[in-house]
Amino acid sequence: MSRYWSDIVHRLTPYVPGEQPMVAHPVKLNTNENPYPPSPRVLEAIRQELGDASESLRRYPDPTARKLRETVAAYHGIRPEQVFAGNGSDEVLALTFQALLKHDKPLLFPDITYSFYPTYARLFEVDYRTIALDDSFAINVDEYTAPNGGVLFPNPNAPTGRPLPLADIERLVARNTESVVVIDEAYVDFGAESAITLIDRYPNLLVIQTVSKSRSLAGMRVGFAFGNPELIDALNRVKDSFNSYPLDRLAQVAAVAAYEDDVWLRDNCAKVIASRERLAAGLTALGFEVVPSAANLLFARHEGYDAAMLVARLREKEIFVRHFKAARIDQHLRISVGTDAECDILLNALHDIFSAYVG
Amino acid sequence: MSRYWSDIVHRLTPYVPGEQPMVAHPVKLNTNENPYPPSPRVLEAIRQELGDASESLRRYPDPTARKLRETVAAYHGIRPEQVFAGNGSDEVLALTFQALLKHDKPLLFPDITYSFYPTYARLFEVDYRTIALDDSFAINVDEYTAPNGGVLFPNPNAPTGRPLPLADIERLVARNTESVVVIDEAYVDFGAESAITLIDRYPNLLVIQTVSKSRSLAGMRVGFAFGNPELIDALNRVKDSFNSYPLDRLAQVAAVAAYEDDVWLRDNCAKVIASRERLAAGLTALGFEVVPSAANLLFARHEGYDAAMLVARLREKEIFVRHFKAARIDQHLRISVGTDAECDILLNALHDIFSAYVG
Repeated sequence: MSRYWSDIVHRLTPYVPGEQPMVAHPVKLNTNENPYPPSPRVLEAIRQELGDASESLRRYPDPTARKLRETVAAYHGIRPEQVFAGNGSDEVLALTFQALLKHDKPLLFPDITYSFYPTYARLFEVDYRTIALDDSFAINVDEYTAPNGGVLFPNPNAPTGRPLPLADIERLVARNTESVVVIDEAYVDFGAESAITLIDRYPNLLVIQTVSKSRSLAGMRVGFAFGNPELIDALNRVKDSFNSYPLDRLAQVAAVAAYEDDVWLRDNCAKVIASRERLAAGLTALGFEVVPSAANLLFARHEGYDAAMLVARLREKEIFVRHFKAARIDQHLRISVGTDAECDILLNALHDIFSAYVG
Repeated sequence: MSRYWSDIVHRLTPYVPGEQPMVAHPVKLNTNENPYPPSPRVLEAIRQELGDASESLRRYPDPTARKLRETVAAYHGIRPEQVFAGNGSDEVLALTFQALLKHDKPLLFPDITYSFYPTYARLFEVDYRTIALDDSFAINVDEYTAPNGGVLFPNPNAPTGRPLPLADIERLVARNTESVVVIDEAYVDFGAESAITLIDRYPNLLVIQTVSKSRSLAGMRVGFAFGNPELIDALNRVKDSFNSYPLDRLAQVAAVAAYEDDVWLRDNCAKVIASRERLAAGLTALGFEVVPSAANLLFARHEGYDAAMLVARLREKEIFVRHFKAARIDQHLRISVGTDAECDILLNALHDIFSAYVG
C-alpha cells in the first residue's frame, strides 16, 4: 500500500501462476506444459535467425508480425487481417478485455474456469457475472442468455479439460449478436473442435489460441486471436497504444516454424492424447473420479483423500500438480499430462500415499 | 468503428513506430537502433539455452525473471526487489502509467518528448498537462511545480537527445514528494548521468531503462524499472494482473549476458559517441543547426530546406530518418547515429540534394 499507487492497484488480486520448482528434476505436472520438445524446425529457425543475429538482434522486430500472421492465416485458411499476434494468449486475453469486453452490461463467464479472467476484469474494471457449470462441470450455452457485454469461456474449459461441441458454440454465437463471444482455445488441439471455422460467418466471434501447449513453446510467449478484421482492429489499436513490439524476433521465427511443421503437431497431440487416456485409466483404477478431458490435463478428485493433503505429499516427492482453493473444486487435482514415464511416477506415488495413509 | 469495441478504443490514437523498411540494404537511421551487433556473449548465451532447448522452450519462463533482476541489480549496486523487468521499456512505461501515474491531479511532461506518452495517457485515461521546453529545447525542472499526479520525461530527452544534469533531477525529485517522478533513461548510456544512484534516497523516483539502444538488443524486447520496492510492487501487481510471463526464456538469457559484458558496453558507447560527434560536425558543416545530444541520435534542422522534403528525397535513396509532423519540431529531422560509413552516406546524400535543389 502506498500513496504513490494508482487507485486501481489497491483493488487488484494478481493471478498466481503455477510454481516453477527449483529442484533439479521435478515431475512437473502443474502448468500444462507439453512433455515433449518443440519441432526441431523451431530450433533450426532460431539458430538461422541467430546466424544473422549480429544484424538482426540489434533491430526492432516487425511490430505487426506480418510473416507470422500470414503463416498462421494460411494454416487456418483465413486472411492475415483476421489474425492478431500477442505475447502469449494471456496478453491477448488482457488486450481483449480492454478492447472488446468492457461495456455497460456485464461480461458472462463460468463460475469454474480459467482463474485469470476475474483478475483481468478487476484490472480493466470490467463488470462480470459468473454462470454455474452443471454438476458434471459442463457448460450449458443456453444459460448465457442474459443481456451482456460479452461471453467468454475456454473450450476445452479450464481447469476441467471438458470440451463443448462446436454446434453449441455456434448456437450461442448465432444468438448472442449484440456482444462478442470469446472462445479461449488454449487446449483445443488435444481433442476439441476449433471455432476458427466460424469466424467468416459471425462478426461477433473471437477465438484465442497459443503455441504454449500443443506446440511446446510455453517458453517463447506467442498467442493469437482470430476474428473479423473489425475485432482484430480493436486489438491492434489497444496494442499500439500499449507496446508496439510485444513479440521479439526469435519468438516470431520460432512460431512461424512451429506452424510450418504440421506433421510434428499431429504426432505430438496423438502421443499426449494416448498418455491422457492411459493416465485417466490409471487414476480411475486408483478410485479417482476423472472429468472427461479433451485437453492435456486431467481434473480429478478422490472421495477418500483430501486434495490439499495429496498435493503436499506429492510435493515431498518432487511431483508437482495444481490445486485451487476455490469453491466447488477444492477437492480436485489438476494434473498435466506428462510422458507415460512421468504419469507412472505419479500413479505409483499416489498408490504409495494411499497405502501408507492412516486417515 | 464498431459496436463491439469498448468505448476507450474509439478514443485512442495509437503510436506509430518508425518504419521497418522492406528494402534489402537500407541506411536505417530512423529508429535509434545501435549500428553494431550485440556482445558475442549474448549469442553464446542464447545458443547455450537452445542446446538445452528440447527441455527449456517447452517450459514457461520464470515469471519473476529472478536471475535477470539479480544480474541487473548487482550491475547497478542495488537490490533485486528494486528492479522490475518487462517486455521492452515501452511495456514498462505502459505499466507505469497504469500503476503509478493515474491520479486525480494531472501528469506533467514536456511538450516535446517521446510521442508515446500522450498515447499511454489516452489508453489509461490519465489526465496530463505539457510544459513547454525552452527555445533551446531544454527542460527547466523548476517549471514542474504545479500540483500533479506524476512527472515524466526522458533523460536525455526524446526526440532531441538533449540531456539534463543529475543535480536538476535531484532538485525536482526532492521537491516533488507527493507524486512519482519517472525518468525514462532509454538513451542514458550515450553520455548522460543515470538517476539510479538516487533511488535509495528518494521513494518517489522511478528510473526506466532498456537493452534496445546501448546493448544492441532492440530485437529482444527487454526493459527495466528501478525504484523503491513499494513502486516496484505496484508494477508487479499490475503485470501479474495482465500477463504473468512477459519475457520469454531467450530474452531473459540474452539480457543477462548483455549485462555481464560491461567492456563491450563501454566500447560500443564510445564508438557511437565518436560517430555522433563526427556526424554532428558534418551536419553543421552542411548548414544544419544541431541540438546538443547525449543520445545515439541527433535532432537537426536546416533553415534552407523543408524537413518533409528532405525526408522524401532521402527515402528515394533508401536512407531512412525520422520526421515528426508536430508543433515546433516539424522542420527537424531525427537522425539515428549509424556507423561512420552510414553517416557518410547520409552526409553525401544531403550534399547532393542541396546541390541539385531548385527552390
